[in-house]
Amino acid sequence: MLAEIITIGDEILIGQIVDTNSAYISKQLNAIGVKVYQITSVQDERAHILHALEDAKNRVDLVLVTGGLGPTKDDITKETFCEFLDDHLVENAEVLAHIKFIFENYVKRPTLPSNLSQAMVPSTATVLKNQHGTAPGMWFEKDNVVFVSMPGVPYEMKYLLQDEVLPRVIKRFNRPHIYHKTLLTYGKGESEIQEIITDWENNLPKDIKLAYLPSLGRVRLRLSSTNINQKILVDRVDAQMENLQNLLQDIAVGFEDETSIELRIASLLTQKNQTLSLAESCTGGALVQHITQNSGASKFLMGSMVPYKTTLKTELLGVSAALIEKYSVVSGEVAEAMATQCTKVFKTDYAIATTGNAGPTKGDADADIGTVYIAIASPEGVFSEKFSFGEARERVIKRATNKAFEMLLKEISKN
Amino acid sequence: MLAEIITIGDEILIGQIVDTNSAYISKQLNAIGVKVYQITSVQDERAHILHALEDAKNRVDLVLVTGGLGPTKDDITKETFCEFLDDHLVENAEVLAHIKFIFENYVKRPTLPSNLSQAMVPSTATVLKNQHGTAPGMWFEKDNVVFVSMPGVPYEMKYLLQDEVLPRVIKRFNRPHIYHKTLLTYGKGESEIQEIITDWENNLPKDIKLAYLPSLGRVRLRLSSTNINQKILVDRVDAQMENLQNLLQDIAVGFEDETSIELRIASLLTQKNQTLSLAESCTGGALVQHITQNSGASKFLMGSMVPYKTTLKTELLGVSAALIEKYSVVSGEVAEAMATQCTKVFKTDYAIATTGNAGPTKGDADADIGTVYIAIASPEGVFSEKFSFGEARERVIKRATNKAFEMLLKEISKN
Repeated sequence: MLAEIITIGDEILIGQIVDTNSAYISKQLNAIGVKVYQITSVQDERAHILHALEDAKNRVDLVLVTGGLGPTKDDITKETFCEFLDDHLVENAEVLAHIKFIFENYVKRPTLPSNLSQAMVPSTATVLKNQHGTAPGMWFEKDNVVFVSMPGVPYEMKYLLQDEVLPRVIKRFNRPHIYHKTLLTYGKGESEIQEIITDWENNLPKDIKLAYLPSLGRVRLRLSSTNINQKILVDRVDAQMENLQNLLQDIAVGFEDETSIELRIASLLTQKNQTLSLAESCTGGALVQHITQNSGASKFLMGSMVPYKTTLKTELLGVSAALIEKYSVVSGEVAEAMATQCTKVFKTDYAIATTGNAGPTKGDADADIGTVYIAIASPEGVFSEKFSFGEARERVIKRATNKAFEMLLKEISKN
Repeated sequence: MLAEIITIGDEILIGQIVDTNSAYISKQLNAIGVKVYQITSVQDERAHILHALEDAKNRVDLVLVTGGLGPTKDDITKETFCEFLDDHLVENAEVLAHIKFIFENYVKRPTLPSNLSQAMVPSTATVLKNQHGTAPGMWFEKDNVVFVSMPGVPYEMKYLLQDEVLPRVIKRFNRPHIYHKTLLTYGKGESEIQEIITDWENNLPKDIKLAYLPSLGRVRLRLSSTNINQKILVDRVDAQMENLQNLLQDIAVGFEDETSIELRIASLLTQKNQTLSLAESCTGGALVQHITQNSGASKFLMGSMVPYKTTLKTELLGVSAALIEKYSVVSGEVAEAMATQCTKVFKTDYAIATTGNAGPTKGDADADIGTVYIAIASPEGVFSEKFSFGEARERVIKRATNKAFEMLLKEISKN
């Protein structure tokens, strides 16, 4: 069963925003066995939208459309759906009451005609209630293809998709199960891996697909398949994954969880009732921001510090000025001292410390751009590693963040 | 002149990654007068790619394709282009030498046949040198439409686009100028704004397009137009923008810069030789991470702290425990004390402090979920504001971050 996502909005096509809705929708659809065949982003323009809807109708069973449902004149999705469906707009009493309720209780000003016009929907539409906004979702059918229209505002779309759209898709369509399993590897490039697994890859059953996903220091290997019978599906993919893992036992470090590495760290620390603090120099808060974006962080994260200025590493963290003088601020010795002091200052079991030169110009230390030292302090002691992460600042910070979490996870998992 | 972006890769369609390349490419094309008509994401599948290329050929003048150029078997873009162009692969000596150079100097292991196969390109392709990877970019023409193939790895794509693709596009096509100008407003909803500007909007020339972009507490109003003559274009849009600004003078706060609010803060502080520190509780490092992601942050940012645990606000920042006891940790009084102490501990001119409850469950304080206090300390003193940012954690943090930077920018601009 195939779906297409159509996102409507000039802001996507001029690069004013990144389209995060499509990835979210794709992931949710995959989880219920719906394969996304194509994602199409089109302009707020009548003829273009009509063309995209018509094309999608010929390709897939389900078309999810986001955007163009605001109260202002540049939003034309509803009118265009009317034209596509040969339908007309009618006022929906429930939506009207919901809009009035929101204005009375939250917006706290009288409604304008354009606000009330959001209660107008195509007469053949099944209205999907938007709990978090005034633009209703809509469900239509044409020639046995289902079309769903949702607002483009991410959090409104997310609730609507979860609460109203997915349950209806599950009821309306027979869907196979889709299963992805992704192996994480470190230390070899994709071509080397292919060389090792070439016989296995050549003998992989046609309905199991292998993808190589290289990124910043790691290659992920994803197996994907589809089957009506979930047990058969999972057993067949898992068996192939076991073979693959055996072939790559030196470099395979585990499977990509649905949960991110931060969530795995969070869950382990919470479970063990242990605590964490962070002293970030070159990662500049990227570590703490990743950890606190998930709720429950306060259970194990005591706090963090970005002692950006060198002297603050002494004043706030208590790293010896003589040590910094001797080894330079970008050194393994200083990283380790930062981590150790961090566990003392914040009174935690674990600490991560980073110091380095993220570029593009050199700072207080003479280290090459891209040089980063990461130290982990644990109840067992402290250790550090040196890395060269290239010259692009964004990439240096990202790679250092990934690596720091990997080092910490490995350390926590040991104990 | 119209372009289409085609991104190839199952990882996009199963939601494993968010497609950030398309927004980047769109923005760059817009800047040189190329309008992106459509963005299409398709699978790593021969027939699907061929279909997308054929469709795009009938719609636009320039097709930019990313992805599917790796050395492994799941990458099939080159072979598919050969089929589309009725061409065959030949070895390119320059690319071969570049691959060998990279392996000798960076990868430091012998090449494998699959690595060398990246030097095979369609015989009619103009090869575009990829300085940052082994997969070359390629430029083809068919029926007067230009096709460009680039790797999907974001940093490889970015350099290739800037250094090789855009200069060729500028040379090859006559392009009009495209101009967008975006007004920032705070305090009214999009429907209210439409009500105020309705006469002006109805009389807007047909070739100037207005878009309403509502998001978390603000509405941005974008005017867009296109013209061969740049001066006429800019004058006409600017004149309409001035009218719009006059109509909305109570709520308009300025124009959306190409530069972000963090960069504006950075530039002002650097210019005035003033310094900043941060004490973040509920924003959990989002502020410092936004600031340090740009190079040059060390010129004005002394450091930051996330005293997540309540007692650390006393131990590290020196906020009086009695004050926290009296007003609760989520209060304006505590936010202001955090900000003031922060300027003392980090010895800075300005400080931002945040304290609140980002949800989804309540923490150390009894404040409603979504309640956030933001305080700004400056050489003039300290003040705080209270906000209710809703119940979704991600949104609370994002809105608090936006608001904190707005408050700081306003304060710095005053002095």
